[in-house]
Amino acid sequence: MSNQYVSLRNIKFILNEVFNIEELNQYDYYQDYDAEAIKMTLDAAKQLADIELFPFRMEMDKQKPKLKDGVVTAHPQLKKIIKALGDGGWISAHAPYDLGGQQMPLSLQNASLYMFYAANVCAAYAFLTEGAANLILSFGNQELKDYYIPKMFSGEWQGTMALTEPQAGSSLSDITTTAYPQPDGSYKIKGQKIYISGGEHDAVDNIIHLTLARIEGAPAGTKGISLFVVPKYRQGEGEMVFNDVTCAGLFGKMGQKGYVAAQLMFGESDDCRGWLVGEENRGLANMFQLMNEARIATGTMAAGIASASYYASLKYAHERPQGRHLSDKDVTKPQVLIIEHADVKRMLLFQKAISEGSLALLIQCSHYADIVVAAEGEEKENAHLLLELLTPIAKTYPSEMGIQSTNAGIQCLGGAGYCDDFPLEQLARDIRINAIYEGTTGIQGMDLLGRKVMLKGGKALQLLLAEVQATMAAANSETLQPYSEELAKSVQVLGGITQYLIGLAKTERPEVFLTDATLYLEFFGIVVIGWQWLKMGVVAEKALENAKGDDVNFYQGKLAALKFYFAYEIPKLRGLKTRLMNNDRLTLDMNADYIN
Amino acid sequence: MSNQYVSLRNIKFILNEVFNIEELNQYDYYQDYDAEAIKMTLDAAKQLADIELFPFRMEMDKQKPKLKDGVVTAHPQLKKIIKALGDGGWISAHAPYDLGGQQMPLSLQNASLYMFYAANVCAAYAFLTEGAANLILSFGNQELKDYYIPKMFSGEWQGTMALTEPQAGSSLSDITTTAYPQPDGSYKIKGQKIYISGGEHDAVDNIIHLTLARIEGAPAGTKGISLFVVPKYRQGEGEMVFNDVTCAGLFGKMGQKGYVAAQLMFGESDDCRGWLVGEENRGLANMFQLMNEARIATGTMAAGIASASYYASLKYAHERPQGRHLSDKDVTKPQVLIIEHADVKRMLLFQKAISEGSLALLIQCSHYADIVVAAEGEEKENAHLLLELLTPIAKTYPSEMGIQSTNAGIQCLGGAGYCDDFPLEQLARDIRINAIYEGTTGIQGMDLLGRKVMLKGGKALQLLLAEVQATMAAANSETLQPYSEELAKSVQVLGGITQYLIGLAKTERPEVFLTDATLYLEFFGIVVIGWQWLKMGVVAEKALENAKGDDVNFYQGKLAALKFYFAYEIPKLRGLKTRLMNNDRLTLDMNADYIN
Repeated sequence: MSNQYVSLRNIKFILNEVFNIEELNQYDYYQDYDAEAIKMTLDAAKQLADIELFPFRMEMDKQKPKLKDGVVTAHPQLKKIIKALGDGGWISAHAPYDLGGQQMPLSLQNASLYMFYAANVCAAYAFLTEGAANLILSFGNQELKDYYIPKMFSGEWQGTMALTEPQAGSSLSDITTTAYPQPDGSYKIKGQKIYISGGEHDAVDNIIHLTLARIEGAPAGTKGISLFVVPKYRQGEGEMVFNDVTCAGLFGKMGQKGYVAAQLMFGESDDCRGWLVGEENRGLANMFQLMNEARIATGTMAAGIASASYYASLKYAHERPQGRHLSDKDVTKPQVLIIEHADVKRMLLFQKAISEGSLALLIQCSHYADIVVAAEGEEKENAHLLLELLTPIAKTYPSEMGIQSTNAGIQCLGGAGYCDDFPLEQLARDIRINAIYEGTTGIQGMDLLGRKVMLKGGKALQLLLAEVQATMAAANSETLQPYSEELAKSVQVLGGITQYLIGLAKTERPEVFLTDATLYLEFFGIVVIGWQWLKMGVVAEKALENAKGDDVNFYQGKLAALKFYFAYEIPKLRGLKTRLMNNDRLTLDMNADYIN
Repeated sequence: MSNQYVSLRNIKFILNEVFNIEELNQYDYYQDYDAEAIKMTLDAAKQLADIELFPFRMEMDKQKPKLKDGVVTAHPQLKKIIKALGDGGWISAHAPYDLGGQQMPLSLQNASLYMFYAANVCAAYAFLTEGAANLILSFGNQELKDYYIPKMFSGEWQGTMALTEPQAGSSLSDITTTAYPQPDGSYKIKGQKIYISGGEHDAVDNIIHLTLARIEGAPAGTKGISLFVVPKYRQGEGEMVFNDVTCAGLFGKMGQKGYVAAQLMFGESDDCRGWLVGEENRGLANMFQLMNEARIATGTMAAGIASASYYASLKYAHERPQGRHLSDKDVTKPQVLIIEHADVKRMLLFQKAISEGSLALLIQCSHYADIVVAAEGEEKENAHLLLELLTPIAKTYPSEMGIQSTNAGIQCLGGAGYCDDFPLEQLARDIRINAIYEGTTGIQGMDLLGRKVMLKGGKALQLLLAEVQATMAAANSETLQPYSEELAKSVQVLGGITQYLIGLAKTERPEVFLTDATLYLEFFGIVVIGWQWLKMGVVAEKALENAKGDDVNFYQGKLAALKFYFAYEIPKLRGLKTRLMNNDRLTLDMNADYIN
C-alpha cells in the first residue's frame, strides 16, 4: 500500500465491470477502444502519474510559483509534467482524429484524469489547455484552429479561461473587458481579469487566453459577451511579439499552491490584440456548451483528491499502533493498530464510500457524454438529458463531500494529520476550491432545481428514475434487496419533494422554490450516490461467486461500503426532507439587519 | 463592522443578561466582581485584543517561527503579546488572591479568552503558561510554587504541557520518558516529546515543561506515570544553567502557524533535571483534574475562531455586490449585495448559530466551574457533575461545527475565500486542530457516553434534564412555545437513545455500546446547543419589549438565529437517531481487510 493514491483495481472495476466501457466500441467513433486498448491506456496513465506527478505533489505545494518583474517562475517539474501529458497524447485524447485527437471515450480519459489529479493537482495545467483548445475547436475558424491547436495539444502552449473580473465573479453578465474592432479583423482588448488559473508561468512558450469581453457598443448583460483568443505572444512579421498581456499579481491560495491563479492586465500599453472565436455576442452561450465537461472535470479532480486522502489515511491506519481494545486494556500487551478501532473504521469507510461513489458517478456521466458523441436520435438525446441533469451533482458531490472526507482523513491521523510531513493537510487545502470552481455549490443547486429538473417538462428526471429502477430491479438478492427497498423509499421522497417545490415554482416568484436549492442538491446527491453504490453492489455480489485471491476482499469491500453508505449516509435524508418540505421562507424573508 | 472579529455586545448579553454573572459576587470568593468590574474587565480585554493581537493575526501566520541552530525565532510581536497578557494580569486572572491571582470568575476570563483567540490564536502561548502554572499551584510543593509561579504569571517564562510521545499519541499509558531519582531529590529526565505547543521560542527568558514521565521501575500503564517540572534553564549556583532540553525540530502545521509545535529531546547529554510535582505515579490522575478547564479552553479557542470567520464573511456579504434577484434580472440595474441572496443568508445564519451557540455553552460550563470553586455542599456537587457531563460537548461542538462554519464562511466569499488576502482561509486552517487538541472527538465521545452519562448512576444527566426543563418552562410565549416543544421532543429522543445504549452496555462488551459514541456526542451536542439557543431566545424576547436603537436588531437577531437553528440544525437529529438506534455493529465487526 506504499504511497498509494488510487486503486487501479477499482478504476478497472468501475470502467469494465460496472459500465462495460469496452462496449462503446460498438459505435464507429470509438471502434479502436477494445478491452486491450482500455487496459493499455489506464496502465500508461498510472505509470505517468507514478513517475511525473505523484513524487512532486508535496514539493510543488511548498515551492510555489513566484512572480518577479512580471515573470512567474514555476517549479522545474511543471515543464516536465506538461510535456509528458502533451507527448502522451493526453491533452488531445478526447478530440476527433481529424483534428489531431484520439477519439478516446471521455469515460476513459476521465478515469485517467482522476489518477493524474489524485497524484498531483498540477496536472490541471494541461487539462485547462485542453478546455481552451476545445473552445477553439468547437467555435473557431480554420485559421485559428490551424495556428493554435497543434501547439496546445502538444503542451508547448498553455491555454487558459479568462472569465472572472473583480466586479463580476459568478455574475458573468457584468464583465466589462472591452474589445475594439480593428480594420484587419482583429480586436484591441482592454481590461482586467482575476483568478486566472495557469494565467502566467515559465513552463511553456506561450499562453493562450480564451477571454470573455464585450465588443464596444454590445448590449448589456449576457447577450453582449463575446469570446476571444488572446495570446501572450502574437505572430509578428516573422517573429513572435509581446501582446501586452501582463501579470499584475498572483493570488496566495489556501491550497493548489502549485497551480497559479493570476491577475492579468490586457492592453495596458494599448497593444493587446484578440481574435473573435465564434459569433459576436455568443461568447457566453458557446462557453456554456462546454460547461458540462468543465464541471465534470472539477468533480473528477475532487474525487481524485478524495481518493488520495483515503489511501493516505488507510495506510496510516494500517501502520500506526495506538491504544487498546476497550475490553482488553492490558498495558503489558502491545498497542493495537488504529484500524481496529470502530471509530477509525467508520472514518475510513466514510472516505471510501465518498471517493469511490464519486468516481462511479463521474464515470456514469462521462459514459453518457460518450453516448452523446457517438450515438444518434433518441439514444443521443436521452443521454444528453441525463448528462445535463446529473452534471451539477457530479460537480458538487465530490467537491462538497470531498471536503468532509479529507477532513475525516485528517482526523484518522490525529496530530499527524495536521502536520505537513503527512499528505492529509495539503489534500484538505487542495480540495477546498472545487466547490467554488466552475460555479459555486449555490449556483449548481439553482441549476439543478431551477433548470435541469424541469428540462423538457421533467423528462430528464423521468429518464433518471428509469435508470435507477433498472438498478433496483437487478438488486434482488437476499443481501441487496433491503438496500434496493431503502433506495426506492428515498427516490419516492425525492419525488415528493420535487413535486412540492415545482408546485411552489408555479405559484410564487422563483426565489421561493429555490430558497434551499443547495439542500435540494445535497438531497439529490445522496440519493444518486446511493444508486451508484447499489449498482456497484450488484456487480460485486455476482463477481464474488467466482472471485479468488485479492479479489475476494476487493468485492467484499464494495459490499461493505454499500452497507456503510446505507447505514450512515442515507439516513441524512431525513433531516434534509424535514427542511425541504418547510416553506417558512425563513432565510428568504429574513431581514438582513437581523444577521448581525 | 470594519475588522470586527467578535461582538462585545453579544458577549455582554451572554454574560450579563443570560447568565447574570454579576450575581456570582454573592459568593465571598467573587465578591469583587460587580457589574462595573465585569464591564471594565471586558473592555480592557477587547482593547488589548484590538491593539496587540488582531493587527498581527495574518502576519504571524505568514512569518512563522523558524528553527536555526537550536534557536526558534518567533515573530517580534509575540514578546509584546505575552508581556501584555502578563502585565494585564490575564495569565493569573483565575488564580486565588493568595497565590498571586485575581480570583476572576472563569466565565469572565473565558469570555476574554474568546476575544483574544478570535483576534489571534497566538494568545494561546500565554494561556498554555496558565495551564502549566495551575498544575504547579495545585500539586507542587511550596518551593516550586515560590520559584516558578511569579515568572510564569508575569509572562517572563513560558509554560508547556509535555505529554505526547511518538509511540504514544492519545494513548498516554504508553509513554516511555524516564525519570531517574537523584540523591538531592531531583530526577534525571531522559526522553523525547512531540507536538509540544510553545515548546521552544525566543519571546521569553525560560520555558517550563510540565512533563509526564515514568520513574525508573514504576508500574506499567497509567498507574506508573508521574508529573515533573522540567525547565529549559535551571537554577545553578548563582546563575541559570542550560538544563539539556533541546529542540530537535518544529512541526509544519496546516494552521496556527504562529503557535510553534516542537519536538523536544530531554537529557541527550545526560544533564536534564526535573522535579516531581505531586505524588509519585499520580501524574496522569492529577493532570486530568485540570482537564475540564483545558478542554473548555480548546472549545473557547474554536468558538473564537468561528466568531472571527463569521464577522469576516458578514462584512464581505455587506460590501460585495454580485448578481441580481431571480425575479428581477434587469442587467442595466446595479448588482445587489450578496447578503440579499437567500443562500448567503443561510450560510451566515449557520455561522451565527454555531459561533454564538458555542459561546453560550462555554459560558454555561464556565459558570458551573465558578460555582464549583465558590459554593459548598450539594450546590457545588451538582455544578461539578454538570460541568463533567457538558465538558466533552463544550470542547467538541465548537471545534467540529467550527470547521463546518469556517467552511461556510469561505463559501460566502467564493474565490476570495480561498485567497490569503482575506482572513477566511487562515481561520479555516487554524480551527482544524481543535478537534484533535486535548483528546480527539472520538475520545470525547467515549468520555461522554462511556463515563459521563453514567456518572453517579446517571445523576449528571438528570441534573441536565432539570436545567433544560427549566428553560423550556420559561419559553412559554406564543413565539417560543413551538421551539420549546420541539426541544422537548429532541430531549425525549436523546433519553430513548441513551437508555438503549446503556442497555447494551449492561449486556455486551464495552466496544458494542460505544461503537458510534462519536455520533452520540454529535446528537447530544445539537440538543444542548438548542437548549442554549432557547435560553437566549427567552431573554431576547423579553428584552425586545423595551429595546431601543441598535438593540432592536440585536435581539431580533437572536430570535432569528434561534429560528434558524430549529429549522436547519435540529432536523439533523433524525438521521443520527436512525443510526444510533441500529445495533448492526457494522463498523465494529467489519473485517479490516474489506476496507481496501
